[in-house]
Amino acid sequence: MALISIIKDFHPLGNAKLLDRAAQLRPALRHGVREPIGGFKLKERYSAEEDEIVLRQLPHLSLGKGENLCLDFGTHMVGYITLELSYSGSHPDAPAYLKLKFAENRMELSENSQDYNGWLSRSWIQEEYVHADLLPARIVLPRRYAFRYLKITMMDTSPKYKLIVKHAECMTESSADWSCVTALDSGDHELDRIHAASLRTLANCMQDVFEDGPKRDRRLWMGDLRLQALTNYVSFKNLDLVKRCLYLFGGSRFPDGRVSAAVFTAPDVQADDTFLFDYALMFVVALEEYLQETDDQETLDDLYDIAMQQVEYALRQIQDDGTLNEQAVKDSFIDWCDELDRSACAQGVLIFALRYARRLARRRNDWSQGSFLMQQQDALRRAAVRHFWDETRQLFVSNGQVSAASQIWMVLADVIEPEKAKKAMEQALCATEVPIGTPYLHHYYVMALLRVRMRTEAVSHLKNYWGGMLDAGADTFWECWDGKDPGFSPYGGSVVNSYCHAWSCTPAYIIERYLLKEASDE
Amino acid sequence: MALISIIKDFHPLGNAKLLDRAAQLRPALRHGVREPIGGFKLKERYSAEEDEIVLRQLPHLSLGKGENLCLDFGTHMVGYITLELSYSGSHPDAPAYLKLKFAENRMELSENSQDYNGWLSRSWIQEEYVHADLLPARIVLPRRYAFRYLKITMMDTSPKYKLIVKHAECMTESSADWSCVTALDSGDHELDRIHAASLRTLANCMQDVFEDGPKRDRRLWMGDLRLQALTNYVSFKNLDLVKRCLYLFGGSRFPDGRVSAAVFTAPDVQADDTFLFDYALMFVVALEEYLQETDDQETLDDLYDIAMQQVEYALRQIQDDGTLNEQAVKDSFIDWCDELDRSACAQGVLIFALRYARRLARRRNDWSQGSFLMQQQDALRRAAVRHFWDETRQLFVSNGQVSAASQIWMVLADVIEPEKAKKAMEQALCATEVPIGTPYLHHYYVMALLRVRMRTEAVSHLKNYWGGMLDAGADTFWECWDGKDPGFSPYGGSVVNSYCHAWSCTPAYIIERYLLKEASDE
Repeated sequence: MALISIIKDFHPLGNAKLLDRAAQLRPALRHGVREPIGGFKLKERYSAEEDEIVLRQLPHLSLGKGENLCLDFGTHMVGYITLELSYSGSHPDAPAYLKLKFAENRMELSENSQDYNGWLSRSWIQEEYVHADLLPARIVLPRRYAFRYLKITMMDTSPKYKLIVKHAECMTESSADWSCVTALDSGDHELDRIHAASLRTLANCMQDVFEDGPKRDRRLWMGDLRLQALTNYVSFKNLDLVKRCLYLFGGSRFPDGRVSAAVFTAPDVQADDTFLFDYALMFVVALEEYLQETDDQETLDDLYDIAMQQVEYALRQIQDDGTLNEQAVKDSFIDWCDELDRSACAQGVLIFALRYARRLARRRNDWSQGSFLMQQQDALRRAAVRHFWDETRQLFVSNGQVSAASQIWMVLADVIEPEKAKKAMEQALCATEVPIGTPYLHHYYVMALLRVRMRTEAVSHLKNYWGGMLDAGADTFWECWDGKDPGFSPYGGSVVNSYCHAWSCTPAYIIERYLLKEASDE
Repeated sequence: MALISIIKDFHPLGNAKLLDRAAQLRPALRHGVREPIGGFKLKERYSAEEDEIVLRQLPHLSLGKGENLCLDFGTHMVGYITLELSYSGSHPDAPAYLKLKFAENRMELSENSQDYNGWLSRSWIQEEYVHADLLPARIVLPRRYAFRYLKITMMDTSPKYKLIVKHAECMTESSADWSCVTALDSGDHELDRIHAASLRTLANCMQDVFEDGPKRDRRLWMGDLRLQALTNYVSFKNLDLVKRCLYLFGGSRFPDGRVSAAVFTAPDVQADDTFLFDYALMFVVALEEYLQETDDQETLDDLYDIAMQQVEYALRQIQDDGTLNEQAVKDSFIDWCDELDRSACAQGVLIFALRYARRLARRRNDWSQGSFLMQQQDALRRAAVRHFWDETRQLFVSNGQVSAASQIWMVLADVIEPEKAKKAMEQALCATEVPIGTPYLHHYYVMALLRVRMRTEAVSHLKNYWGGMLDAGADTFWECWDGKDPGFSPYGGSVVNSYCHAWSCTPAYIIERYLLKEASDE
């Protein structure tokens, strides 16, 4: 997730008790050491052509001005790089000047970052210019990178010497405990591969908090957190990390109590001045799902009122006709897709969240609130059918637009009887006027298929979509992927895309909870 | 000095005793703290136009994408930079990406380093790209810079925030002790200014060794050392630093015992695989001058044989006709000037050096060597007159070429009676077919004028040449300067020129030893 909202003189509402609790739950980071498994030289500065290098050549391979060496660390990782540099020829009489480019994905190596002119900051591009004043040198780079490949380009040596990269290693970092998981052996190789990449994606986003992406934005976003938490429950089971993140969202909010779309955690904890209607409601969902896993009464007591505040804010956005007002719709993320009409989607997310809000009320024996929420849910459902259901076409239409997103969220919200819901889902992809943009919505698409018991289609979509990324060279699942437009970026340049992204990590959850056993209800 | 020579499989001759002594003499580095005295914004990326900034604006001045801020630290300095960065606007949601460019000279700020395509390594250009992952940030840059100006360009922020440079400071570094010197008050303001810049030049080159330039190459070159030592004797009087440098040259030499043109001192001491005929002879000169100052018998005993080795090597290059062979001439630096015929110059340098070698022999009571050297000197002088003196034109001609350099070195070598020498010097600049390229030769030009008692011309040249640099904005004296061609670079691009350079530091020496009192003999 990455979105830019700016509120002048934004002063978040802080809750010291919740933030203290979040600080106590800071996870231990686990480290390992990885070395390259191979290397190659790109023939031209920005070409995809390459000369393979056998790894044992490396300690003897000398790089002159303009030459490059690409190290392949074998898979996607997050961590800190150490380079041991030496030289051949005469004593170096000038510093070695290197450009380092870290790439999550082989395509990135051939992209020229100077061509990037998109709206996200180019400061996210993982590039460094390094001077080694003396050789031999051991260079420990202070910043953390997310990468599989490291391209080292010699910007300049001097005629007297060439550079040798004697050794490179990465100290990996993650709060995921791999001893909790075993590789899936389902008998279906394709599912096993997807499951493995799903866990790697989650693990590499599991740091001090659940980051949305370790390359970019490295931030705790609410919509991403919910999906990470679900996948974490079937894998690394770091329940405290979920709790910590929920407390961070509770601990710094909008001045009126709304949960922010994201929370900055460094140098201090501070709610982002970005509000997303659907993300705030995911706080309610994620809290209830955390309680399903833990039955942690302390957390329920601490965060129940905040969850209900989100629901109450959302319910205040309902108009007389039972649909959400323009502001709520405009504030809904749903998917990266400018043309998407979000009215039906936002309504669906709210109804969906009310299901979890009611469960929270039940957990607190807050019967009056429970009954109030049920009435609201019913009213919203009726309004949804009235406004969005097209009986003739047997699908949902949002202000004249048919979209997969509308079908998905109306189905997940249970606004219509199962047979009709199935009809809508059968048409969701073929009738949609706007494509699904991100794995975030693809996840909910699969969940909606499962909800109407279209299991075969769900499996097939999982394999086509997430498997398609693997076929295109993914080690971890990407922030964006469109098989028909592999270079797509919502940011005006794929060089800032994230290729290990939280909201794409859910296949392991879907496989474990829905495909390996017959699911009952979500 | 900067020159590139490459000898395959070069294994210098090391002398552990001398290197140990050199290590013991390592100077303490002195530190101070300097803050900017002003600032400005360059209007275009590479223009000379600017908007002045009042310093008190700085803590409130926010930099957006592409904007720059130039800090002026008031004068040239060498040291380490610390920046305190903050922001205005929303909480930063992306790293700050900065380009830092350090400039000794205001012109450098407007030069685009990407246009540089010369033969010296671009790794010398003092530029860094820095990511600040979190703001506020205190950035302590690990490398040492030589600069007066620091240009900070915001490569990218994000729409959410702008960068503020709250504070900048430089921890200066030098082994020069300013408490040893007082500002000159000669009654001649021009001379006083030149004297002050001369000392600043020397001080900023005085580090762990006498560096040729703190920007580039930061290395101990023999020809530069001699001039630095002379200026040091009339100013900072760090005699141990001269001794250390002589021991370093003695401690790592060419396999056949020759003194290298330069010595690398890090990570280990190692002679450069560059031999310069004239520079090796300057070891003899500098050693004798050091003894004039110190009468340090230990150093004489340790280095006498090495000095004589240089002389003996040089004398072996004399041909039957009494002139130097092609190799010796080719190996002579003299000046940056490709077209210069160096035959007469090399002969002059050798005869000049023999004067010092004879004094060394006298100090050791090595009478047979002294008498041998005197004979050699006489024979070389006679050959010089025979081959290079043109009685008709009353000047020296080197293989058909008239150059200032030839007049200078023949005069400094005392090959001809004073009246004729004066005639030669009177014609040196007007008759020369090749211009003087560097302050290194300008120094010897002034010394040759003084030797023929053309004191008025010497003072005038000192004021015109070194004063010309000050008028062009110098704080310290430059590696190259030609008033008619201010952008001249021997390296194919002025962006790698050094604007604080050892061989340009001598005006204080000339003023103190020759202009403030009537000189007797050099």
